[in-house]
Amino acid sequence: MTYENLTLHTDKYQINMMYAHWVQGSLNDKAVFEAYFRKLPFNGGYAVFAGLERIVHYVQNLRFGDDEINYLREQEENYKEEFLEELRNFRFTGNLYAMQEGTLVFANVPLIRVEARVFEAQLIETALLNFMNFQTLIATKASRVKQVAENDILMEFGTRRAQEADAAIWGARAAYISGFHATSNMRAGMLFGIPTKGTHAHAWVQGHDTEEEAFRKYAEALPDQVTLLVDTYNTLKSGVPNAIRIARQLELQGKRMNAIRLDSGDLAYLSQRAREMLDEAGFPYVAIVASNDLDESIIFNLKAQGARIDSWGVGTQLITAADQPALGGVYKLVAREKNGEYVPVIKVSGNPEKMTNPGFKDVYRIVNKQTGRAEADYIALQEEDDVKREERIKLFDPVHPYIHKFIEGYEAIPLLHAIFVQGELVYELPTLDTIRAHHEEQIRLFWPQYLRKLNPETYRVNLSVRAWQLKMDLIHQHQE
Amino acid sequence: MTYENLTLHTDKYQINMMYAHWVQGSLNDKAVFEAYFRKLPFNGGYAVFAGLERIVHYVQNLRFGDDEINYLREQEENYKEEFLEELRNFRFTGNLYAMQEGTLVFANVPLIRVEARVFEAQLIETALLNFMNFQTLIATKASRVKQVAENDILMEFGTRRAQEADAAIWGARAAYISGFHATSNMRAGMLFGIPTKGTHAHAWVQGHDTEEEAFRKYAEALPDQVTLLVDTYNTLKSGVPNAIRIARQLELQGKRMNAIRLDSGDLAYLSQRAREMLDEAGFPYVAIVASNDLDESIIFNLKAQGARIDSWGVGTQLITAADQPALGGVYKLVAREKNGEYVPVIKVSGNPEKMTNPGFKDVYRIVNKQTGRAEADYIALQEEDDVKREERIKLFDPVHPYIHKFIEGYEAIPLLHAIFVQGELVYELPTLDTIRAHHEEQIRLFWPQYLRKLNPETYRVNLSVRAWQLKMDLIHQHQE
Repeated sequence: MTYENLTLHTDKYQINMMYAHWVQGSLNDKAVFEAYFRKLPFNGGYAVFAGLERIVHYVQNLRFGDDEINYLREQEENYKEEFLEELRNFRFTGNLYAMQEGTLVFANVPLIRVEARVFEAQLIETALLNFMNFQTLIATKASRVKQVAENDILMEFGTRRAQEADAAIWGARAAYISGFHATSNMRAGMLFGIPTKGTHAHAWVQGHDTEEEAFRKYAEALPDQVTLLVDTYNTLKSGVPNAIRIARQLELQGKRMNAIRLDSGDLAYLSQRAREMLDEAGFPYVAIVASNDLDESIIFNLKAQGARIDSWGVGTQLITAADQPALGGVYKLVAREKNGEYVPVIKVSGNPEKMTNPGFKDVYRIVNKQTGRAEADYIALQEEDDVKREERIKLFDPVHPYIHKFIEGYEAIPLLHAIFVQGELVYELPTLDTIRAHHEEQIRLFWPQYLRKLNPETYRVNLSVRAWQLKMDLIHQHQE
Repeated sequence: MTYENLTLHTDKYQINMMYAHWVQGSLNDKAVFEAYFRKLPFNGGYAVFAGLERIVHYVQNLRFGDDEINYLREQEENYKEEFLEELRNFRFTGNLYAMQEGTLVFANVPLIRVEARVFEAQLIETALLNFMNFQTLIATKASRVKQVAENDILMEFGTRRAQEADAAIWGARAAYISGFHATSNMRAGMLFGIPTKGTHAHAWVQGHDTEEEAFRKYAEALPDQVTLLVDTYNTLKSGVPNAIRIARQLELQGKRMNAIRLDSGDLAYLSQRAREMLDEAGFPYVAIVASNDLDESIIFNLKAQGARIDSWGVGTQLITAADQPALGGVYKLVAREKNGEYVPVIKVSGNPEKMTNPGFKDVYRIVNKQTGRAEADYIALQEEDDVKREERIKLFDPVHPYIHKFIEGYEAIPLLHAIFVQGELVYELPTLDTIRAHHEEQIRLFWPQYLRKLNPETYRVNLSVRAWQLKMDLIHQHQE
């Protein structure tokens, strides 16, 4: 895969701030930023982190080439040549820590931490959020579908309705991470190694004189993967009976038809009737695939109605995350270098939810050793040792700090992994199947009540006492 | 701009159907497909066509290279080597007609017509819809914002919340087509020549000991483009007074501050108070920019409340078309070659809206010569001459065919332009500013009642009597 130059895939204000830092001589001051979202999407109980591989390639390939430099020179006569020279030498030389893709994540937990010269940390904000926000959103949506579909086969079919080409392929990848089995997008298949699936369109049927002829010709051409779309004219009166004829012909050749596909109408009723017709005709092995604007709610309802569907093609609703098409991930300064030391930084706000958690922090997943299940995510200042040593810690709700408990006998799993250290990639990017397996493990780490589609329990995300106290101190300083 | 290979940016079923056509010897049969949508997005009265430039580059660059061929060979042992050889020689050799970008378009009107070997017409469906659907959606959303914002300055600020990288840049371009003035995305600026805008983030303020110091240092670095974000701590008590101090210092240097930016809180109230404070301090020329999850409804309401905002930064809601993140554009077979002649083709459906309009058709915009305004779009079979000669025609509503009128004295503007003829690009791609000017002209072509945000009048889209009769005949044939 060749990577196009995304160095200017950033907001102009980043370049302006870089320029202002350069003018003021503060470009080399270190800054610590955290990327996180404030609210779980889809009124769900969890999200699935994704986007890291894309971010890694992006960071590795940051270069201001001639096109970029010339463009900046033309654009902005204020920019001095020496600044443009500085950009020519630009490389990411900082540290970047991130969650592993496929990890279950929650609101207000740092998903990525960047510690770098402010000059660098500022440039990468926009693209990093762009990738993280979209891919995490789609991985989350796909995981919700997976929870409902259980062991059924799930196929991502959304390219034609995706928000342009990148969304289609990175969305297909995100869906695969969360347990989808295949995509229809061949380029996603080629680039990422995702299995691909697909059969034929209505146009194939319309392109022949009769539906039966269309089915027969398709089965002749691809006898080992015959899935027939049965709703071009009339599903039960013509589509299914014609498909049954083809299944018979295939058996005479020693072949088995794969499936029929329903793409319109009452999928619950049609699938039940089609199942009966197929079974009565002696084809219990022919599966039923459904598509048509499906999402986790519709699949849940169809299953509750006893629909006989084995495999789901999920398109528009998944690839655009239609009920919430943006994850509001933000990238906030939490500490900055001053006289050679980090000082914690806060953003106060009239809206308490928008206040940031100051300081250089780590995140641990607190797992109960007895149950093997996650109890809480715990955000502590980096220098705090008790949680690292798995000693007794206090868990309390940052929204209602008077509610608390002490815990011990837990395992504290650090969630932020070193990806870049001093600009060097120190993380071996896992294969997509490893990421997928990691996501499955993550799902098993949580009680089902956190995972359910509707009205899930709220998983605890707690600040350490010291991180909380630091926040309180800074708020009071600002209020004085 | 380098174009990556998008040849496999297609659904697997297209490749399967191509293979089946190749096996059956029907790959060279011509087919006519139309791309259109069935329902206007956002409950609006119109849409704005976009995506053509992207489609042109895509079609021109279609090539199955080694990577693509090897991938297909590995993927599918069914595919014969001779088929893969056929793909190696694949070029688009057909005809493609399309609307010009920026044109106002309506439901059920063919926006693109492809006439090509079925082998080619099938391959391009997925990408063509992917590009048309997204870019048309965002151009439409942007045009709605523009209608409300009137002469205010509009900036596209959405990259961090866009659905991956392509959506950010092609969305920025679509917004510019519909009258936005700038984007924050520097890459979109570089690739497409869109003006870029941006100032500084909260992090710039947090990165200094005081807000005033942050403002002063920014103004020192970029004195000719000072727009200060005033809401990091307290907009009216600290942000605006500090900005006024900077405006004064700039005047001493003979400079004028551009603007302040409000990014949270009650934008109506804050903008009114800030306006008063700036005016009283002698800075009536300092503009007020607002951002924070804006869309056409919020801007409309803020203006109705007397907000004193000169310039709007529109992000998430625009770049994702959040209230309807997918345009359901489809690509339907309307005619196919049989024994060397085209026969019209229909898809019947239990849902009357989903029945296709059969036959090889053209689209005309019927403009009243007296008023200079559009009266209807008229879809006629290609061989119909009366409309071409601007003779008396019957307009009737295809949903309520008993409602009709005859018109004459009109101008009939053909809307579908030849883009590719026998595989050759015959269309000179207009500059982005030409497209933008075309969109403005299009807006003037329509009565305001079709353009309004809420409850617009329905613009007439009519079939010719012959096109209607053909549809009726085919429906009856299928019902027999």
